[in-house]
Amino acid sequence: MSVLSEELTLATVKGVRLGAACAGIKQSDRDDIVVIEAAKGSTCAAVFTRNAFCAAPVIVARDHLGHHPRWLLVNSGNANAGTGQRGLDDARRTCRTLGRLTGAAAEQVLPFSTGVIGEYLPVEKIESALPKALSALDEAGWTRAARAIMTTDTRPKGASRTVNLAGVSVTVTGIAKGAGMIHPDMATMLAFIATDAKVEPASLQACLSDAVDGSFNLITVDGDTSTNDACVLFATGGAGNPELSRQSVDFPLLARAVREVCEDLAEAIVRDGEGATKVMRIEVQEARDETEARNVAKTIAHSPLVKTAFFASDPNWGRILAAIGRSGCADLDISGVSIWLGNVLIVENGGRAMSYTEEAGRAVMSENDILIRVVLGRGSAHQRVLTCDLSYDYVRINAEYRT
Amino acid sequence: MSVLSEELTLATVKGVRLGAACAGIKQSDRDDIVVIEAAKGSTCAAVFTRNAFCAAPVIVARDHLGHHPRWLLVNSGNANAGTGQRGLDDARRTCRTLGRLTGAAAEQVLPFSTGVIGEYLPVEKIESALPKALSALDEAGWTRAARAIMTTDTRPKGASRTVNLAGVSVTVTGIAKGAGMIHPDMATMLAFIATDAKVEPASLQACLSDAVDGSFNLITVDGDTSTNDACVLFATGGAGNPELSRQSVDFPLLARAVREVCEDLAEAIVRDGEGATKVMRIEVQEARDETEARNVAKTIAHSPLVKTAFFASDPNWGRILAAIGRSGCADLDISGVSIWLGNVLIVENGGRAMSYTEEAGRAVMSENDILIRVVLGRGSAHQRVLTCDLSYDYVRINAEYRT
Repeated sequence: MSVLSEELTLATVKGVRLGAACAGIKQSDRDDIVVIEAAKGSTCAAVFTRNAFCAAPVIVARDHLGHHPRWLLVNSGNANAGTGQRGLDDARRTCRTLGRLTGAAAEQVLPFSTGVIGEYLPVEKIESALPKALSALDEAGWTRAARAIMTTDTRPKGASRTVNLAGVSVTVTGIAKGAGMIHPDMATMLAFIATDAKVEPASLQACLSDAVDGSFNLITVDGDTSTNDACVLFATGGAGNPELSRQSVDFPLLARAVREVCEDLAEAIVRDGEGATKVMRIEVQEARDETEARNVAKTIAHSPLVKTAFFASDPNWGRILAAIGRSGCADLDISGVSIWLGNVLIVENGGRAMSYTEEAGRAVMSENDILIRVVLGRGSAHQRVLTCDLSYDYVRINAEYRT
Repeated sequence: MSVLSEELTLATVKGVRLGAACAGIKQSDRDDIVVIEAAKGSTCAAVFTRNAFCAAPVIVARDHLGHHPRWLLVNSGNANAGTGQRGLDDARRTCRTLGRLTGAAAEQVLPFSTGVIGEYLPVEKIESALPKALSALDEAGWTRAARAIMTTDTRPKGASRTVNLAGVSVTVTGIAKGAGMIHPDMATMLAFIATDAKVEPASLQACLSDAVDGSFNLITVDGDTSTNDACVLFATGGAGNPELSRQSVDFPLLARAVREVCEDLAEAIVRDGEGATKVMRIEVQEARDETEARNVAKTIAHSPLVKTAFFASDPNWGRILAAIGRSGCADLDISGVSIWLGNVLIVENGGRAMSYTEEAGRAVMSENDILIRVVLGRGSAHQRVLTCDLSYDYVRINAEYRT
């Protein structure tokens, strides 16, 4: 299922309904709030940003996570971050209001916000629009919800997988938003995933943490870790499978489906990175350990010089080499390093490859999807990071964001 | 003495002569090689990049440093980096040639290169132009040399200080180049400084290392540490003062003059940062230790979101707050954090300051020189980092660099 198609089609998940409405947060007529309901008895796992300045809704959602959440309340257009005690009060009040309207306890509601930092949440607007969002609740509401949570995103992002667990068909569907301030640390901007599998809570959390670590935590648009990153996974049990735990034979099948949905969503975020014209997949191989591989890949991925060279389709491999050199590998023997652009060897023994020609480099650079493979020659660990290029439009989008 | 003036006027240093010439490295008719001669008996100190992929001339200069260097040979237009064994051979050959022309040993020549990475050095062109550069040697050659070492720089950079050491007037003059790939680690792009003081070698090295640490190592344009960073300090003894060492009463006076010259040059590099329209001075106060203060300041300085907001003169302080939050301060209590833009308090207790108005924020942001002061409220250490904004022109300059 393509994550790029404008007509995003997502599989429904038994036990999950989504409703969106326009609260006028951005003073436009597009949807900007979403409610997501998970059936009674669902289990829930979540991971949140590690940014010390985490937003009010992140603090409240983390508090509520242990209280058998049944509802997610999401708004775009305002991050409710940097808003102090009032921000916390505002987030809690929206939870109480949704609880009152649905018969749930306030603690069963997890709040999420994304948008401008440092402005107070327009609570009344959100409260006024809640009944409309609730009346729109629908198992088929995924795509509309994916659109409603967008900020600088240019397209909705979603992914689905279906796996067969001992004869029971189980679905995993997720949606995400994010295009800038993307360098997730233990979570992404906002991603909401659900499965109709029945899963024991601690195992569900392990499943999500692993999936996030191998997907959202390996992407970067601009190196800026958001204050609002959050990723939630509901398991409703609607599929009718026997409860899964980490010990279950079928657990790896579900875990893989969740991971693949996360990977699809993470890639969709990079592909829609602010101003992005290209996606670069940076694979670092033969590192001493995975941390080293990740550091090298992220140093390349964060280099504005590398990113602008890719924007210009210029095979300026010296910038990749300089990034590797400053990435902090202890005692790096540069003569063991080689670099490939797609299937073109550009650097060997730490210098330009004998066989390299600018023409071959340019041919790879003209693609929209580019693999950069760095072979360090000092171990057997590897890691892969996804990023995008740095264009005029990144500057324009972020210079004009609030104007 | 202004570092910005297009008519850069620099004090001469007794015992130092500089000559420039056009070798045609960039196929234009501007000067692109410089020779710098220090009088017999001069002492020399230097610091170099810590990038593992350091350029061939850096390796050779580091080798030669212990052999009483008397000559610097600098070229712009080609970095001689990523050029493997041939790059080393080329750098050594230019040293031998200059040695033959001047009667010096090859080991008394330190080579420096700056420009495109990954192309072989045009050795013949440089050798052909050396006699012309030597015939141009002049004590008053500083400004011409400052121009000849420019690459994407838009103006020459230099600074001078004169101090009185027990009745002897001593001069310190330096020149530097650099505008992109600027995040010096133990040194800057290229800076050449000289004093006519007589200074014992180990003390001269300590003097330079301290000065670089407090100046070049506290600036960043794009977070990319160059492969070619180098900073050299000659002390010729031409002033006639008794030899200084770290124990001398007057040593701190000279050290301060060297540090001030380094600070001026470092600031000039940021002010001429690729595409820069604004200089931001980021002061972090009340940190637990200096490393923490530096990390917070550098995280803000490297954030593309902060940099684009400043380009747009948008007081989007949420981005500063998000950068602080991801900078890795252990157990940061955000309620103790306040942030000032110029003399406007924008954040207190971790949220928007009660007294803050967008108008006041915008007034500060419209300036070209902006102080960002972050008070962490958890210690007494502080640090200051200089950086510039991120504009369309940064992208243009780096996308078009090789075309």
